[in-house]
Amino acid sequence: MKIGVHKIAMAAPNDVSGLKCLIDSGVVDPATIVALIGKTEGNGGANDFTRGFATLSFQLLLAPLLGVTPDEIGSSIAFVWSGGCEGVLSPHATVFTQTPSEVAETPRLALGIGITRDLAPEEIGRMAMVEAVAEAVRDCMDQTGITNPQEVHYVQVKGPLLTPARITDARARGAALATEDPNGSKVFARGAMALGVALGLGEVAAADLCDQVIARKLDLFSSVASTSAGGELKNCEVLLFGNSPAFGGDYRIGHATLCDVIDADGVRAALASAGLVARLGLSSADATRIAAVFAKAEASPTGVIRGRRNTMLSDADINYERHARAALGAVIASITQDPAIFVSGGTEHQCAPGSAPIAAIVRA
Amino acid sequence: MKIGVHKIAMAAPNDVSGLKCLIDSGVVDPATIVALIGKTEGNGGANDFTRGFATLSFQLLLAPLLGVTPDEIGSSIAFVWSGGCEGVLSPHATVFTQTPSEVAETPRLALGIGITRDLAPEEIGRMAMVEAVAEAVRDCMDQTGITNPQEVHYVQVKGPLLTPARITDARARGAALATEDPNGSKVFARGAMALGVALGLGEVAAADLCDQVIARKLDLFSSVASTSAGGELKNCEVLLFGNSPAFGGDYRIGHATLCDVIDADGVRAALASAGLVARLGLSSADATRIAAVFAKAEASPTGVIRGRRNTMLSDADINYERHARAALGAVIASITQDPAIFVSGGTEHQCAPGSAPIAAIVRA
Amino acid sequence: MKIGVHKIAMAAPNDVSGLKCLIDSGVVDPATIVALIGKTEGNGGANDFTRGFATLSFQLLLAPLLGVTPDEIGSSIAFVWSGGCEGVLSPHATVFTQTPSEVAETPRLALGIGITRDLAPEEIGRMAMVEAVAEAVRDCMDQTGITNPQEVHYVQVKGPLLTPARITDARARGAALATEDPNGSKVFARGAMALGVALGLGEVAAADLCDQVIARKLDLFSSVASTSAGGELKNCEVLLFGNSPAFGGDYRIGHATLCDVIDADGVRAALASAGLVARLGLSSADATRIAAVFAKAEASPTGVIRGRRNTMLSDADINYERHARAALGAVIASITQDPAIFVSGGTEHQCAPGSAPIAAIVRA
Amino acid sequence: MKIGVHKIAMAAPNDVSGLKCLIDSGVVDPATIVALIGKTEGNGGANDFTRGFATLSFQLLLAPLLGVTPDEIGSSIAFVWSGGCEGVLSPHATVFTQTPSEVAETPRLALGIGITRDLAPEEIGRMAMVEAVAEAVRDCMDQTGITNPQEVHYVQVKGPLLTPARITDARARGAALATEDPNGSKVFARGAMALGVALGLGEVAAADLCDQVIARKLDLFSSVASTSAGGELKNCEVLLFGNSPAFGGDYRIGHATLCDVIDADGVRAALASAGLVARLGLSSADATRIAAVFAKAEASPTGVIRGRRNTMLSDADINYERHARAALGAVIASITQDPAIFVSGGTEHQCAPGSAPIAAIVRA
Repeated sequence: MKIGVHKIAMAAPNDVSGLKCLIDSGVVDPATIVALIGKTEGNGGANDFTRGFATLSFQLLLAPLLGVTPDEIGSSIAFVWSGGCEGVLSPHATVFTQTPSEVAETPRLALGIGITRDLAPEEIGRMAMVEAVAEAVRDCMDQTGITNPQEVHYVQVKGPLLTPARITDARARGAALATEDPNGSKVFARGAMALGVALGLGEVAAADLCDQVIARKLDLFSSVASTSAGGELKNCEVLLFGNSPAFGGDYRIGHATLCDVIDADGVRAALASAGLVARLGLSSADATRIAAVFAKAEASPTGVIRGRRNTMLSDADINYERHARAALGAVIASITQDPAIFVSGGTEHQCAPGSAPIAAIVRA
Repeated sequence: MKIGVHKIAMAAPNDVSGLKCLIDSGVVDPATIVALIGKTEGNGGANDFTRGFATLSFQLLLAPLLGVTPDEIGSSIAFVWSGGCEGVLSPHATVFTQTPSEVAETPRLALGIGITRDLAPEEIGRMAMVEAVAEAVRDCMDQTGITNPQEVHYVQVKGPLLTPARITDARARGAALATEDPNGSKVFARGAMALGVALGLGEVAAADLCDQVIARKLDLFSSVASTSAGGELKNCEVLLFGNSPAFGGDYRIGHATLCDVIDADGVRAALASAGLVARLGLSSADATRIAAVFAKAEASPTGVIRGRRNTMLSDADINYERHARAALGAVIASITQDPAIFVSGGTEHQCAPGSAPIAAIVRA
Repeated sequence: MKIGVHKIAMAAPNDVSGLKCLIDSGVVDPATIVALIGKTEGNGGANDFTRGFATLSFQLLLAPLLGVTPDEIGSSIAFVWSGGCEGVLSPHATVFTQTPSEVAETPRLALGIGITRDLAPEEIGRMAMVEAVAEAVRDCMDQTGITNPQEVHYVQVKGPLLTPARITDARARGAALATEDPNGSKVFARGAMALGVALGLGEVAAADLCDQVIARKLDLFSSVASTSAGGELKNCEVLLFGNSPAFGGDYRIGHATLCDVIDADGVRAALASAGLVARLGLSSADATRIAAVFAKAEASPTGVIRGRRNTMLSDADINYERHARAALGAVIASITQDPAIFVSGGTEHQCAPGSAPIAAIVRA
Repeated sequence: MKIGVHKIAMAAPNDVSGLKCLIDSGVVDPATIVALIGKTEGNGGANDFTRGFATLSFQLLLAPLLGVTPDEIGSSIAFVWSGGCEGVLSPHATVFTQTPSEVAETPRLALGIGITRDLAPEEIGRMAMVEAVAEAVRDCMDQTGITNPQEVHYVQVKGPLLTPARITDARARGAALATEDPNGSKVFARGAMALGVALGLGEVAAADLCDQVIARKLDLFSSVASTSAGGELKNCEVLLFGNSPAFGGDYRIGHATLCDVIDADGVRAALASAGLVARLGLSSADATRIAAVFAKAEASPTGVIRGRRNTMLSDADINYERHARAALGAVIASITQDPAIFVSGGTEHQCAPGSAPIAAIVRA
C-alpha cells in the first residue's frame, strides 16, 4: 500500500473545487480517500462553525461519487479541521489516499485509522478514555505494520468532551465526572487522549497512570500526539502516521519538539527527521518536497518567551490561541515557504509543558 | 558624539522602572536621553490609549530629574510608540542617549532629530508636508555629519493627520484638503511623510512629485522611511538613523527590504547590512549583539502570500494590521531570539507596494 | 391568500430541527414556504460563513421534501440572513408561507417577491440598479394587490456588490464602475437598492435621481427599505411586505422610524402602527401577539447619541455594526420581551441619515 | 452635610477638562471631592489600562490644587473606574463632593467611605475579607447616620485579588489560599466582598457564612452590593450610598433588582425607588432629574434570556461581559435618555444568580 498526500487550497470553508478538480482530472479516485486534515478561516472557538460547514460541503461532494449518503461518508473518511487562520495561515485541506503499491527500499509514509467505542460521559477525561485510545493506537500500528513506536511520528486524535446534556445525564445516573464544567472538560479530554497515545506507544507506563494524573501531572506526555475535543463526537478517532517497511510511495514523515512558538530550530529538526535538511534559505526545489506540516501552538505557561514578557494570556480582545497560532504559523511558513500548514492549539500531555509537537511529511 | 542604545522591558504601559533602574544605577544620565521608541500592549487602533499613558508616565519620571515640567519633556526628548503586541511581540522601549565620544575607526550609529513647523490642515498629506519633512531630513543629515544618503538606514517620522476639528476649520476658511475623511487622512499623511524622506534622501526627484501622486503613485517610495500619523501632533518629528564617520560608540545600523511578512531572508539581510552575518542558528553571543530591530508589517495587497490565499483583509474580528504584526514579529524573533522588537503597520510609499522596510542596530 | 408567519429557534447555523418539527407535525406544508428571514450567530462581516451554512442546511432539509435539488430551492424560496447575534439577539429564522384563504374584514399581511434580471458590474450601485429594483417593487405591489404605497411597511432587498472578479471583468471591457473598491461598493449597492424601493413606492421622484446622488444625497430615502449586498448574488431579490385587502389571515404589519439605537418610542410606534398599543409593561398576552420585528441599526454619524459622545466608530476591537446591533436589539427586546428579532446594519438611503427603519408583524 | 453629584463627560481616558471647568468656574471646590465613579473606553479586561490612565490624569489635575502629591490623592479621594463602553455607553465620571448643609425635611443622599486594613493573600476571597468589609460597611453607616439598613441602596466595594506574586508569597509561607489561579481569584474576591456587604447590612446571618460558601452558595447575597477586584489594591475600599436624615441637599437614591439585562421594569423600579415615577416616555424635565445610574450586567447563567437561547457565553470573539454591558446600557439609556451611565460586570453574591443590582440617584 501507499499513502497519497494532496494539498488543496480553499477559497472558503465550503470550497471543495480543489478536490473536485483532482477527482475530475483523475488524479484522485474518491474511493481511495481515507482522511482529510485542514484549516478553516473561523475563529477556532466554540462558535466557529466553519469546521462543520467544511465537513458538510466535502460530504456533499463525495457522497454521490461514492454512492452513499452524506452521513455515511463519516464512517469511511476521517475529517479533522482546525479553525483559525491567523497571521499568514492559509485555508486548505490535505487529502490522504490509500492505494495498492509495491513497498519501497526504505520505510515509507503509512497511515492507520482507528475508532474507539462510544464513551460514557463518566469515561471522558478519565482512564477509560486513555485505555480506549491506547487500544486504537495499537490497532493503528497493526494496520500499518509498524512495530517500532519510534517510527510513529504523528498521532492525531479527536474525541468527545462533556456537553451540558451529557453532564445532566451523568448526574441523573449518579455517575461521577472528571469535571462538571463543559469548557473545562476540553482540558481533561485532550489530556486523556494524549496520554492514551503515550500509553499505546509506550511513552508512559500503565503503572504511572490513574485518573488523578490526567491534566495534572504534565511531565507524563506523548511527543507525537495532537489531540482535540468536540461536542459532536461520542467516540475517539485516531489517525496514526509513521514510516512503515510495509508501505511504498514517495513520502516519509518525521517529527520534532518545539520549545516555544518561535523555535525555528525545532521546525528544521522536524524537516530533517523526515529527510529534508533545511539549510539557510531552502531552495525552491527542496521547498516543494514538503507535502504537509502539522504543529501545535501554545501560549507560554510562564508568560515569558526567550526572557521577554508575553501578553497573550492577558489579552481580553484576542484569544491567546489565536496569538500563538499566528506566531508559529508565520515562523514555519518563513522556513517552508508555504503558508498552507496545519497549526492548532491545546497541548495538555502533548510534549512537556510549554513545548509542542511538530510533524512534517516530505517527498523522498 | 556617540549614541547609546538601552532596551528596557515594560510590565505595563506605565512601567518606567526599567529606565529608573538604569538612571539610579548611573548607566543612563537622564540629561543625555534624546529619544525613546517602543511598543505598548494596546490594540494599535484609534482607541489605543496605551501610547499616551506610556508617554505621560515617562514624562513624569523624567521631569523632576531634568528640572522641567512634564509638558516640556516633549521638546527635548522624542517619543515614538507603536501599540499592539501581537503574537510574541513584547512591550518595551529602546532609549537613545547622545554623549560626547571619540570617533571610531569606521562610521558608527548616529541619530539626528528634526522638527518641522506646524502644518495647516490643508498642508497635511500634500506637497507642503512632503517638503517640510524633506527639509527636516536634510537638517538631520547635517546634524549627523552623514553626507552619503546610502549611509542613512532608518528614518522614523511621526506627524499630524486630519482631525474632525481641523477639517471643520479648513472648511470655514474655504481651504481644500487632501481628503475630508479623518481616518482616510492617515494614508495621505503617512504617504506624504514617506515621500518627504524619499525627497530629502534623493530617492525620488522633486520633478516627479505633486499632490496627485501622494498615496496613489506607489512606485515612488523611500526604502528607509517608517512613518506614522496621529491626531495629537501639529508638526512632524523626524528621527534619522545612519552610520556617520563623525560618531563613535559601539553600534552600527543597517537595513533591508522585506518582500512579505515571512521574509526571513530579508530579516537576515538587515542584520548583515548592520554587520552581523546570521548563519543558521544564531549563536547566543551573536544574538546579544543585536541591540534593536525596527520593521513595518503590512497585509499583502494581492491577498496572496507565497502563492497562498491570505485572509487578513477579510477578517472582521481582528484588524489586518494585528495579523501582520503577529506574523512578522514572530519571524524576526525566531531569528534574533528576542521578542522585544519594534514592528508597526502602514507602509504607503515605504518600500514598493507589498514590501516593507526593516532596520537593525548591531553592536560592532 | 394569506401569509403564515412561523418563528423557529436555531441552536446553531445548521439547526433546521425547528422547521423540521413544524413540517413533521403538519403545521407547515413545505410546498407553501415562500421566504425565510433570520439571524445567525456569526460576526456579520465579510468572513461570516454562518449565513451560507444556514442556507445550505435549510436547502438540504427542503430539497427532498419538494422533490428538487438543493440548488433549485433558491429559485422558489427567498433566504435572507443577517449575521451577528450581539447582546441578547437570539439565532432564529422566521418562515413565511403563502396559502389560499378568504379575505378578512380589514387588510392583512401580504408578501410579494420580485426578482430583477442579472445586473452587469457597471450597473451595480447606479441608476440601472435603482430602476431594476423599482420595477421589481412595482411587480411585488401588483402581486399583493396593494395599490396605496402607504400600505407597504417593509421592503427587504438583497443584491450584488462589486467583487474583485467583476471589477476585473469591467475593466477589461472598459466599462466605468460606481467604485473600484470591493468593500466600498457595498455602500453604493445598498444605497441604489434603497433608492429603487423609494422610486418604486413614489417616495422620491425619478427626476431627482441620477448616478451622482447614490450614496451621496442622503436626504433622498425610503422609510421602509432594508437592503443588503453580497458577492454571491447577480440579481436583486425583493421581499415586499404590506397590508392588502386581497389577503386574509391573522397578521398585520406596521412600521416606524428609529431616531437612534435607543429610541424606545420608535419601537412602540412600529408596534402601534401594526395595531398593538404598547403600554408600559406589555402584558404577556400582548407580547405573544408580536410575530416578528425587523429593524436596521446604525452608528450615529455625528458620534453623539442623546448629547453624549459615542465610541462605536473609534473602537478597533469590535466593529461599530456589532455595537449598534447589540444596543438596538436589547432595547427592542426590552419592550417586546423576545430576543429573537431581526436587527441588521447599513442604512444608506434607508430613512434619513442617523435614523433607521423598523417594522413589526402583529397578530390581529 | 450634603453630597453633591456632578457628571462630567470625558473625550478620552485622560480628559479631565470637565472637572477642571467645574473647578475653574467655582461650581466644585476640589477640597470637597470625596469620590469619583466612572466609565472608561477600554475593553474592561485584564489588559485595560484606561482605568489607570484616568486615575493618574485626575490625580495630576487635583494634586497641585490640593497641595499634595499625586500619590497622596488616593488616600483622600476614592476612584472607581469600570472599563468598557459597549453599545451606547458613554465615557464619563460622576464626581461626588461633601459640603456642610442643613438637613432636609426628608432623608437625603448620604455617602460613607470606609477602608479596611491590608489583607494577606490567604485572607482574599475568604471569611477574613468578608468580615473586614462588613466592619467597613458598619463604619460607613455610622458616618452617614443611617441606622436602618433598608435605607442603604448602593455599596460599591473594590479590593484585592490574588496576583501571581501574592500566590508565590503565600506558598513560601505555607499559607492556604482560596484558589491558586489568579484569574479565578476574582470570583472569590468579588464574592467575599459582596458577602461582606450582606453581613454588614444584615442581609445574611453570620452563622450562615464560612469559607466554603464563598462563590459557591449563591442564594446568600446582598441586593445592594457592587464589587470589583483588582491586582493593584491591598485593602478594600467601600463607598456606601443611602438616604440619611442627617444629610441635606437635593438628591435621593433608590435601588431595585434586574432579573436580566433587558429588564426595563427593573430600571423603572430603581428610578421609582429614588422618587421618580417613570411613565412611558419620560418627560425631558423628569429625565434631567436623574443624576446617576449604577448597574451590574451579567450573562444569563442558563444561556437563556426570556426563553430564547443567548450566545454571549460561547462567543470567542467578544467577551460575554461586553455583550452584557452593551445590552443593559442601551436598555437603561432608552429609559433615562442618557448614555452616560455606570454599568459593570461580575455579580457573584450580588443579587440572586442571574439577576443584578441597579441603583439610581435622582434630584428630589
